[in-house]
Amino acid sequence: METYVHGYSEREASRLQDQASTLADLLHHDTFYPAGARVLEAGCGIGAQTVILAQGSPRAEIVSIDVSQASIEAARSAVAALKVSNVSFRVADIFDLPFAEETFDHVFICFVLEHLGNPVEALKQLKKVLKPTGTITVMEGDHGSFYCHPRSREASLAVQCLIDIQAHLGGDSLIGRQLYPLLKEAGFHSIGVSPRMVYVDSSKPLLVEGFTRSTFIAMVEGVKKQALAFGMIDEKTWDKGIADLYRTTEDDGTFCYTFFKGTAWKTPEGPLHGA
Amino acid sequence: METYVHGYSEREASRLQDQASTLADLLHHDTFYPAGARVLEAGCGIGAQTVILAQGSPRAEIVSIDVSQASIEAARSAVAALKVSNVSFRVADIFDLPFAEETFDHVFICFVLEHLGNPVEALKQLKKVLKPTGTITVMEGDHGSFYCHPRSREASLAVQCLIDIQAHLGGDSLIGRQLYPLLKEAGFHSIGVSPRMVYVDSSKPLLVEGFTRSTFIAMVEGVKKQALAFGMIDEKTWDKGIADLYRTTEDDGTFCYTFFKGTAWKTPEGPLHGA
Repeated sequence: METYVHGYSEREASRLQDQASTLADLLHHDTFYPAGARVLEAGCGIGAQTVILAQGSPRAEIVSIDVSQASIEAARSAVAALKVSNVSFRVADIFDLPFAEETFDHVFICFVLEHLGNPVEALKQLKKVLKPTGTITVMEGDHGSFYCHPRSREASLAVQCLIDIQAHLGGDSLIGRQLYPLLKEAGFHSIGVSPRMVYVDSSKPLLVEGFTRSTFIAMVEGVKKQALAFGMIDEKTWDKGIADLYRTTEDDGTFCYTFFKGTAWKTPEGPLHGA
Repeated sequence: METYVHGYSEREASRLQDQASTLADLLHHDTFYPAGARVLEAGCGIGAQTVILAQGSPRAEIVSIDVSQASIEAARSAVAALKVSNVSFRVADIFDLPFAEETFDHVFICFVLEHLGNPVEALKQLKKVLKPTGTITVMEGDHGSFYCHPRSREASLAVQCLIDIQAHLGGDSLIGRQLYPLLKEAGFHSIGVSPRMVYVDSSKPLLVEGFTRSTFIAMVEGVKKQALAFGMIDEKTWDKGIADLYRTTEDDGTFCYTFFKGTAWKTPEGPLHGA
């Protein structure tokens, strides 16, 4: 069985770029780091969020890491293509960070924890490299937040395959709702989590195309081979599920999905020092 | 079997008041009608929303109707207790409105369509009594938008009982996601729907108490007798489901639910005339 890893096929790469541009405002409008701030982006993948992060805080110094050399190279190209100059890249593992403790003012981690078997341990490692006045910003989706009109049993079963495959690979795609307890368990303080719900109907054609079709349905379609190979679903049910997902992009359809954004401080005094 | 009707038991009445005050800002902050506007509130129940509506637009003239004489009396008392003077009440049926066509500048309808077998027909009737430049504002929850942490099969089954009972009574508690197509089918124009998501974690004790416990779980608990009488669930599973719902109100729990608010115009020219 192929492993399901973000950013390894062309369609996946294009999907991630679509997602990043359509949702940038919803997810990132309230993330800004000041001049001179040293920010660690943990798990940058092919750089879909890196570009937004760096352009949104052009005077901060972003250090973006990923465990994959191939992803780092793609991210480096993406950043170079846009003439963004405040990012440096490094191949590194979140669980074995090559940085001294208290190196960074802020940590930013987006769509990464969902793939990790031990997200709390990852957050603890990231906490170590934060300065005492530092903050962390965590963003995740939650595939269990999906629902649509018209409703469809087969569409739900197809989405469930995506959830089950990610679980099988050691991840958890229902993680958005858990950001608060995860940050708490990792020992962060002054935790604030806010949902970022994407509601789509036919009055919003950019979201129909950029989110429902190019992001969400494309992501579900991406696991067809694995879902059938695992015997999680039969092909007829799968095809009906995918057709029903596309059905929600018609004139009378609606589509709902929620991302969660959490911010927290390393120490209880953080907010006082940092304010 | 007892019919499940909002506002008929003391606990239900208290539940509706809790819901109204905790969620008032989220749901109603962007509803305002100017001085002299004639507003029809269709299906005011015991007046939980009436009070907020009237206080939010103190110089508009609100006409609140309900098909139940008992509800109208309760609503009248609620309004009188708060010395709100811009509301008049009348017992009337949405499907047989005692008003001339083009009587109202605006229609407001909140938590009513979910109980109706033919919501599109209700919207069409309300459209008739609107002036050509008039608007409608529709608010509904969607019980399928519920999810929580920790997850629980039994909690989902208990919530499903509530959904199934409402369906059995001819309603549809998954209606929030359908506001856009319903308004479209009823012939409204310039339809805009926005989700109002309630996200609750233990950093928000007022919502834990006012929404998760006093509103949502109380509503689910309210159908226990019917759910068991129908054989929809066994008592052990039910009790575990309710216990698991309460479990989400602990320190590491989270709870999600989404309301939807739709606004639309009677005619395509409405926005131009009304702007």
